Order: sequence, then structure tokens, then C-alpha cells
Amino acid sequence: MLRALELAATPGVPLGPNPRVGCVLLDADGATVAEGYHRGAGTPHAEADALARAGDRARGTTAVVTLEPCNHHGRTGPCAQALIDAGVRRVVFAQSDPNPTAAGGADTLRAAGIQVESGLLTVESGLLNKVWTFAVTHRRPFVTWKFATTLDGRSAAADGTSRWVSSPAARHDTHRLRALCDVMLVGTNTVEVDDPLLTVRDEHDQPLATQPLRVVMGERELDPGRRIFNGDAETVHLRTRDPEQALEQLFARDRQHVFLEGGPTLAAAFLKAGLVDEIVVYVAPMLLGAGRSAVADLGITTIADAFRPRVTDVTVLDAPDGQSEPNVRITLTPGES
Amino acid sequence: MLRALELAATPGVPLGPNPRVGCVLLDADGATVAEGYHRGAGTPHAEADALARAGDRARGTTAVVTLEPCNHHGRTGPCAQALIDAGVRRVVFAQSDPNPTAAGGADTLRAAGIQVESGLLTVESGLLNKVWTFAVTHRRPFVTWKFATTLDGRSAAADGTSRWVSSPAARHDTHRLRALCDVMLVGTNTVEVDDPLLTVRDEHDQPLATQPLRVVMGERELDPGRRIFNGDAETVHLRTRDPEQALEQLFARDRQHVFLEGGPTLAAAFLKAGLVDEIVVYVAPMLLGAGRSAVADLGITTIADAFRPRVTDVTVLDAPDGQSEPNVRITLTPGES
Repeated sequence: MLRALELAATPGVPLGPNPRVGCVLLDADGATVAEGYHRGAGTPHAEADALARAGDRARGTTAVVTLEPCNHHGRTGPCAQALIDAGVRRVVFAQSDPNPTAAGGADTLRAAGIQVESGLLTVESGLLNKVWTFAVTHRRPFVTWKFATTLDGRSAAADGTSRWVSSPAARHDTHRLRALCDVMLVGTNTVEVDDPLLTVRDEHDQPLATQPLRVVMGERELDPGRRIFNGDAETVHLRTRDPEQALEQLFARDRQHVFLEGGPTLAAAFLKAGLVDEIVVYVAPMLLGAGRSAVADLGITTIADAFRPRVTDVTVLDAPDGQSEPNVRITLTPGES
Repeated sequence: MLRALELAATPGVPLGPNPRVGCVLLDADGATVAEGYHRGAGTPHAEADALARAGDRARGTTAVVTLEPCNHHGRTGPCAQALIDAGVRRVVFAQSDPNPTAAGGADTLRAAGIQVESGLLTVESGLLNKVWTFAVTHRRPFVTWKFATTLDGRSAAADGTSRWVSSPAARHDTHRLRALCDVMLVGTNTVEVDDPLLTVRDEHDQPLATQPLRVVMGERELDPGRRIFNGDAETVHLRTRDPEQALEQLFARDRQHVFLEGGPTLAAAFLKAGLVDEIVVYVAPMLLGAGRSAVADLGITTIADAFRPRVTDVTVLDAPDGQSEPNVRITLTPGES
């Protein structure tokens, strides 16, 4: 199963709406007959990949797979049926399929007389597909809210200038995190005021080949000359101010991980709706004393009601150029302490 | 010299206006004849301590001492003369005495025919007495400004409540830092609004035996019933709003390390006057969205003028009780990046 997890986590697999899955076919002596893994939406599932490599040698093997074999016709046929057709004798999987439209593979296999076992390394397999598992379970994308702040909670000076609050290392780190998401989300106000590109760029400020969907939400009409509408990535304007509606529409588009970089008002709306699943804060060693607040009114009036997310990581981002000061990245997840 | 530094840093030496100094007397073969260190104001200096232990055996020895032997009559006699009287043959010291009223010991020793060398482990010796060296060089106390903030730059909620923004671990750490200072400084407004005790307390909230001087500055008349005027520590009301004047008066009282815990207005006054030498920020994983800002107006209107201190340390303060969330302590020192 560890090998199957390794296969699932093969570097270079493009992110997409599908989970990362690995599969190993073993003969009666436990020797590997074939290995497979899923390479992204539209390509064969891990089981199909391994079965194709094994050919006739698949008959009588044990399939070790990191996720319960799917039971539905999606972009490819159901893996449960493929395993049955190939004459696999036994299936061992880690994580049960949390996707209601694809689940039931284990039952189908058992009904065909195949021995089915599960429960091995389920935590590890779940972590590998944390965002996918969250999205199919909650029927909405996972939301990461990122903001940058000075030590005194400011995102811009009194005159509106904000280049740069974050250090180059923090900005580079932000692009790394953007690349892990499939949606970049801001409000119309951010587009009007900051005119961001919202693309994922490399250290030379060049856009990567694969880009998340750029989404701007809000009812205001936007100038099509804004940089978000350039050709570097696809862009969608969702004409709603309701976080729940926006996430619903994005989930319908097979999107699973929203990177929320909007201004404080949009972030506050998501926070108040309980629709922030992860918070990434870049703290810059800078004091402004005045200026735009990094976080807007959350309707909190007394300390007992403060929003207290759990800290999951604190990392000092040292400046590779030795010129700028280290920023501190604090990652948090909602939940009472 | 390493041994002399160890002696100087002997734990348990009470903090006071004097530097920490260690001294080792060596015979012609390099064997230790006697060791000594300074135990705080009013007690013998390190050299005198070692000479007393050596008695007649001091004659002909080499004195290895972490700081240039003093040349003045303070609370005790000049060490340079004591070394001459004892018949010491050679003196090796690390840090030159930066105190203009005590310096000149090396010249005095040389004039008496004693061989004098210096320059060994000067950095280490200087660090040992960083605050003392700063104070005697700048003729004013070193100022550490501490503030606690939420992730979004708030020190209290909209209704003024602020117990507790910091975690128990952060509050405990604050008391550890308070104990390293000899002045706790706030403004009259903080006394009126928060009525703090301003004492150093242990983990059971009991005041330590030795307390920094509690100082409140400002022209407003104060209610003598305020907690700062209780008997737990000495308290002084400096009737000035000028940071420079306040530090001058505190230096005249032999004070070397001010722990500034006042509200944002007082801190802003010190910052603007360039009289903050160290900043300690406790960042709590909490969002308020509104409420009292941790830092007040600094007269900065544009990002290029932001105050950008250098980061010297980032430490995650884990909650020992496992109940509260880790706070992040960021220590900074002024200076352009």
C-alpha cells in the first residue's frame, strides 16, 4: 500500500478535479505484476493503468489501491467492473470513496465474488487527497483565504500604497500556493482598486502554463480592459455577492480549491458565512500605524467572541536575496480553541 | 577568557546597574590561582573578588578579566589600583570599558608598569552586557517595547475587552522579559484605563522578590488608589510626556533597561523620537475585525515611509496547558532593511 501511495503521489501529475490514486497488482507470492497511477482528468484511472500494463497477467492477482475503485461511468469506465473483467481475485484499498456519485465499488466487487479488504493507511491516503475529499464530501470547494499584513494589521498605507507589504520570498510562496488551487477568487472592488493579474507566475514573473480559473464575484459591472480579463488565463465573473452561491457555481464547474485573495470585505463575508477552511497569513516586519486594515469588520464586539482559528503551521520565510526582511507565514484552520 | 566569561554569566546574579564581569588569576604556568565574579551593585567587583580569594598568591599572576578594569571610585574602589597593589604582573581583558566615568583603567595599569592586552572575545563580552554597554554608551536606558496583537492588528475588541489576547504561554514569557528589565514604563492613560499591576509575577501570579521600578509618565494627575501604587514594587510618576526627558530622568536613577508596555500613543511617541531599541511582538492567532489598534498613528502616510525594523528572532510559544493556541513572538530591532 505504501508503494501504491508513492505511485499516487508521483510528482508532475497535473492537478485537476480527480483524486490522486495509485495501484499495484501482486501475484500469489506477493511479487509485483504491474503498477499504475492516475495522471489527471481524462486519463485512465490508476486501476485501469495497472491492468493495461499487466494484460493477461492480471488474472488471479491482488489489486492494492489507495482509493476504493470507482463504480460509475465518468470520463472513463467504472474501475470496479474493469477489475472484475480482468479476473482480479482480491482487492485491498485504503480510503473509501467519499464521492456519492462514484461510491459503491466495494459492493460491486463483493457481489462479483471478489475478496475485498480496506482500512490500511486510510489517514495517509486521505491526506494525499485532502482537498478532493473535502470537496466531494461537502459538495463545495475547499477555501483557502490568504492575506498579507504588517505587524500592526495593515494591508496598505494611508494613501493606499501597498507595494510591497510582503517580501519577495512571501510573494514567491504565495505563487506556490496559488499553483495548488484551481480557482483564484476576488471581489469586483479588488479588480477596480488593485487591477490584479491573478495569475500564477514563476520567479521571473512569467505565467505558468497551467493556470487556475480567475473568478471575480460581485454585481458591479467591470471594465473589460482590466488585467484580469487578459489572455493569460480563463476568467469568469460570477454576478453574486453571496459566498455560498459562488461556491455552488464553482463546484458545478468541477472546482475544488478556491484561493481567496479578495479584499477584507469579501474575506469577512466568507468568514461570517463559515466558508473559510484554511487561513494563510503573511506577516511582514513593518509598522504603518495607520492605513487600510487587513481584515474588515466581522461583527465581533467583545473579546469572548473573537474568531480563534487553530494554528497548523508557523514558518519563517527567509529572503533569498538577503536584502529584504523575513516574513512569517502563519497557517490556521477554523475551529474553536 | 572563556572561563572568565562563564564566571561573569554565573546564574543568580541579581540584575542591577552594573555590568556582569568575571576574572581569573593565572600563575606563570597558566594554572588558576583564584577566580572571581561580580555579584551585583554594592558587592566587590570581579577583580576584587578574585584578589581577595588569592590573597598573597595574587603577586606575579596574570589577571584575565572580561571587562577593562575600572578606574574610578564608585560604590567600591578602582580595580586598576587594586590589581597594581596586589602585584599582578599582567592584565588581559576582553571589552574596553565604554563607561566614560570608569574608563582609563588600562592606561593606569600600563603607567604602573603592568603588561596590558585586550581584544580577546570582545564580541561575547559585549553581548553579555549588551544593555549595560548600550546604556553607558548612549547615556540613556535601552528601551524594549512590547505589544500583543491579534493577527489583524488589534489589542482589544470594540467594547474595550482584551482579556486575553495573549495566550498564557505568551503572558508567562512577558513576565520573563519584564524580569530582565529594571523599569516598567506606561503612560497615565494606561493606568486610568487598564489599571495594571506592572509587577513581575511567577506562574502562580505571585510577585517576585526583586521588582523593576514601576514608572508612569504623563502630566495627568492619578488616583492614588490605582494598583500601580500598591506596595508590591516601587513606583514613580514622571510628570512629562517627552520620551527623551523621561529616559534622562531614568538614567539619572541608574536605570538601564526600560520595558515599555504603554498604550499605542506612548509607544508611537517613543518610536517617532527614535527611542525604541527593541520591539517584542506577541501575535495571537485571533481575528477581531474591529476594536482598538495595537499601534497608533506614526505619521506614516505612504508605504515607502513604513517603519521597517529588522527581525532578530521568531519563536513559536506553545501552550504548556495544551488548551490555548500557540502565540508567535517576533523580536525586532530598528534600522532600515
